[in-house]
Amino acid sequence: MVLRMSTLFLRTLREDPVDADVPSHKLLVRAGYIRRAAPGIYSWLPLGYMVLRNIETIVREEMNAIGAQEVHFPALLPREPYEATNRWEEYGDSLFRVKDRKGGDYLLGPTHEEMFTLLVKDLYSSYKDLPLSLYQIQTKYRDEQRPRAGILRGREFVMKDSYSFDVSDEAFMRSYQAHREAYIKIFDRLGLDYVIVAAMSGAMGGSASEEFLAIADNGEDTYVRSPGGYAANVEAVRTPVPAPVPYDDVPAAHVEDTPDTPTIDTLVDHLNGHFPRSDRPWGAADTLKNVLVVLRHPDGTREPLAIGVPGDREVDEKRLAAQVEPAEVQPFTDEDFAAHPTLAKGYIGPGVLGEKNASGIRYLVDPRVVEGTRWVTGADQHGKHVIDLVAGRDFTPDGTIEAAEVRDGDPAPDGSGPLETARGIEMGHIFQLGRKYSEALGLRVLDENGKLVTVTMGSYGVGVSRAVAAIVENSHDEAGIIWPREVAPADVHLVATGKDDAVFDAAERLAGELDAAGVRVLYDDRRGVSPGVKFKDSELVGVPTIVVVGRGLADGVIEVKDRRSGERREVALDAAVTELVDLCRAG
Amino acid sequence: MVLRMSTLFLRTLREDPVDADVPSHKLLVRAGYIRRAAPGIYSWLPLGYMVLRNIETIVREEMNAIGAQEVHFPALLPREPYEATNRWEEYGDSLFRVKDRKGGDYLLGPTHEEMFTLLVKDLYSSYKDLPLSLYQIQTKYRDEQRPRAGILRGREFVMKDSYSFDVSDEAFMRSYQAHREAYIKIFDRLGLDYVIVAAMSGAMGGSASEEFLAIADNGEDTYVRSPGGYAANVEAVRTPVPAPVPYDDVPAAHVEDTPDTPTIDTLVDHLNGHFPRSDRPWGAADTLKNVLVVLRHPDGTREPLAIGVPGDREVDEKRLAAQVEPAEVQPFTDEDFAAHPTLAKGYIGPGVLGEKNASGIRYLVDPRVVEGTRWVTGADQHGKHVIDLVAGRDFTPDGTIEAAEVRDGDPAPDGSGPLETARGIEMGHIFQLGRKYSEALGLRVLDENGKLVTVTMGSYGVGVSRAVAAIVENSHDEAGIIWPREVAPADVHLVATGKDDAVFDAAERLAGELDAAGVRVLYDDRRGVSPGVKFKDSELVGVPTIVVVGRGLADGVIEVKDRRSGERREVALDAAVTELVDLCRAG
Repeated sequence: MVLRMSTLFLRTLREDPVDADVPSHKLLVRAGYIRRAAPGIYSWLPLGYMVLRNIETIVREEMNAIGAQEVHFPALLPREPYEATNRWEEYGDSLFRVKDRKGGDYLLGPTHEEMFTLLVKDLYSSYKDLPLSLYQIQTKYRDEQRPRAGILRGREFVMKDSYSFDVSDEAFMRSYQAHREAYIKIFDRLGLDYVIVAAMSGAMGGSASEEFLAIADNGEDTYVRSPGGYAANVEAVRTPVPAPVPYDDVPAAHVEDTPDTPTIDTLVDHLNGHFPRSDRPWGAADTLKNVLVVLRHPDGTREPLAIGVPGDREVDEKRLAAQVEPAEVQPFTDEDFAAHPTLAKGYIGPGVLGEKNASGIRYLVDPRVVEGTRWVTGADQHGKHVIDLVAGRDFTPDGTIEAAEVRDGDPAPDGSGPLETARGIEMGHIFQLGRKYSEALGLRVLDENGKLVTVTMGSYGVGVSRAVAAIVENSHDEAGIIWPREVAPADVHLVATGKDDAVFDAAERLAGELDAAGVRVLYDDRRGVSPGVKFKDSELVGVPTIVVVGRGLADGVIEVKDRRSGERREVALDAAVTELVDLCRAG
Repeated sequence: MVLRMSTLFLRTLREDPVDADVPSHKLLVRAGYIRRAAPGIYSWLPLGYMVLRNIETIVREEMNAIGAQEVHFPALLPREPYEATNRWEEYGDSLFRVKDRKGGDYLLGPTHEEMFTLLVKDLYSSYKDLPLSLYQIQTKYRDEQRPRAGILRGREFVMKDSYSFDVSDEAFMRSYQAHREAYIKIFDRLGLDYVIVAAMSGAMGGSASEEFLAIADNGEDTYVRSPGGYAANVEAVRTPVPAPVPYDDVPAAHVEDTPDTPTIDTLVDHLNGHFPRSDRPWGAADTLKNVLVVLRHPDGTREPLAIGVPGDREVDEKRLAAQVEPAEVQPFTDEDFAAHPTLAKGYIGPGVLGEKNASGIRYLVDPRVVEGTRWVTGADQHGKHVIDLVAGRDFTPDGTIEAAEVRDGDPAPDGSGPLETARGIEMGHIFQLGRKYSEALGLRVLDENGKLVTVTMGSYGVGVSRAVAAIVENSHDEAGIIWPREVAPADVHLVATGKDDAVFDAAERLAGELDAAGVRVLYDDRRGVSPGVKFKDSELVGVPTIVVVGRGLADGVIEVKDRRSGERREVALDAAVTELVDLCRAG
């Protein structure tokens, strides 16, 4: 392959696009890989589509290697199967819904569990047919509330999704493990710096899942790691539950005047000023902060919810959201306060919270709020707090919820040491679906004893178009993109400089010879474009090896530059093809 | 590649699907290539997706060979560009329209002229950038009123669409010609039996277009050919206009009682019975039949239209539809009659038809109705016709329309002899768009003299998923599909028969050796399946070469069968790999 810059449909840009704020978005637009068509919807230009297809090839090869078989479903899907699993409703506003000319309900598929389940049900009926893994590489749709960062979170995107079907949980674990190993190979080949973390299963449901996160400061996901090897998406972190605390010697709870203390800071100051402790000063961790939100359920109903967390921690919106899915979290508004007159804004406490108390609002607390813990919290009267309120003695919440923020230094739930947090981009997600879909849609097979058993399923996703951006997030510098060779649009960016015909003739010959040797060449054959512009373009576009044919030609040498290290060296023109072929084969 | 039938996701069916009425639909479902997901929407099973991808590869190679560059647009597109060209409205009910969560209007792209035009406008500005050809292979959507014949006319389908951009009409003709030649190569490689015909441009607009039709009895399109080389879609046939006829000696028109003659047949009988001609009997061709329809315009307005054709010809619905696009043709109902009391049902004539006459209904006639022609036609009174009514003397229509059926034996418009009609499947369509889109969307470049000129465009489509079905329509027999080698899911269908381990061992070895030699093998390694079932499956699935390893093994021979000819011969096992490699290379 020889791509010529003189005719390539490409215009590099020196300015960042105004709507871009992450490097991958800026660079992919500037280097002519993608172009915005609508919010969260992008077109692929020639170089971008090459990279996308290179990634598809890697994914396809590794899926085929574990015996998964490629199929292809429509993107436009009938409502009924999604109705059967309740996802037509649960997906809420994220689902693009379409009516056809006859008024029939369709959707643009965000994921295809239902369709795969029905297809297998349609064709297979015996344990002898299993195990089976099917996959597709396909365009998917989600009407994101906030599409962002170019193709990192778009509304139309390409995914590889696969589904495994097994006759038992034991057999399923082998399919799951095979996928997990294939994913490791895929992300290694993509050159991504990534971690595998325990995750929440979200809209897929099922019992457990793991995510492959590309490590990136601009990632939307936060994950934690411990020195002992624990790793989880922050959404999935389980707080270690402390042992109950004896409280026999705790005085009875007492309500005190605490005027003008609607915040934790003002409250702590007031406590230390008016009710000093003998052992140590009061801290935010001694207070119990009660946060009110409204859950909007997929059926449209609104439910108020109170969350109690230690006052030194915020409620983490994403952890909360992950816990209440498919409901959406919305603010508790002034109208909501008006509807609940027992709530004293700024001084709300367990006295009125809870399904059996005056407000009737469900009350869930942080798992650290175990029996015997002592708290200062709102007394449900303006300007008053209650001190020495003991969990299990003075109040009993409706349950616990993992909604408090996780902080560096928090202990890992498995005792493997303190957690540190970092950010990542979700590149892959593997789900142990169990029998959620097979039960809902009736996928059963006859087992060895002639008995009908419900099939155990897994589903497995890779963000194929997102990988293009994630690789750039992982691999770029000030000057532009630095592609790993296997996904790069070319192996060699051959730059002919100057005005000398001999240079262009030599470069042309070299391009032809490299092509014949199986090296993919992007050849900057433009006349009348300065060397400076050509060099800038080559750094921006990011092909791993840059070859310059120019002044050195008089001495029979060309320059070979490594895009990543910046290292340059002169190579004899005669030896160039051999050297470059070796370089490209080495990866 | 070795595909094993023991694990391949495939269940062949012995019965035709109940909703299928053309061979390709029946066979593709029975042989496990596709599966219905919703009306006009299909899923691709493993073998089907392989064939689809093989076709994509052929199309991609031939597009790249003419220097067209591959890009990829979204399928979910914003309304605005389609609004600018009026196609948001003109597409009518055929467009899938989608609202996003914010109420924004989107569509599922049926074709991408607007998006390509805007992209080129975005990046290019000079004649030096041209010529340019871009293409994509992409999923498209049309909400067909009557999806039919499986993937022959679906609502979600794969097309290759390309677009050329040139600075002048002369330059454009070179791009057009290059595409035309690439299409010839594509359809040759697909093994299709096809014709190239002049066509109507329909929803694309533009000045001229040609279609590539796969010749097939089940095709939706009718085309005509003459011995002298004229070829056109019947929609595009122009009727040769006869010279005006002298009418000085024609008697004045006279109204006669013709009771109970609401049809042409009853009228002709009555004329011969009561008003016999001296020279010859009256025939249907002497009568002028007036047909009423209603045009439903894209903006929802309804317009009645009267069409006058010689009584021996029917109005051809598809020819009429092609003429009035983007309006849709609907029946003229009883309510419409009620709204036009001057119309005497069964006896309608030019006395009231025409924008300036009593009904006010636009009246278009067949081009054969030239000045001086004499007609018997309705007298606009129940039970009466008018005889000797002369066009140009006694009535003047509002214009002509190409709506009458074309029949075998009609003269070709270019004088190249009598036409014969046949049916075909539209596989490719190449359009001379001219400046329709570049003008509407402002795509202009600076020419050599620094003057802004509007770009001349072409657009070019290939039905990629439709090709899968068209090839089957062209190439099948009673037993199943017969794939041309280049699109077949495998080169060799290797069948191991019997229960003997030695047979399976030998077949396994042969499969491995063929694979190593680059031959794609579908290996029927199923144990416990009878030879009869395996042979039936191999014929149904349609791989071009069937190799049977069975009883002959004792004598060191295997059987090689050509799927198309049915010819079988024995080949020494030792020589099998060499022979089969040669066979596959020969195509």
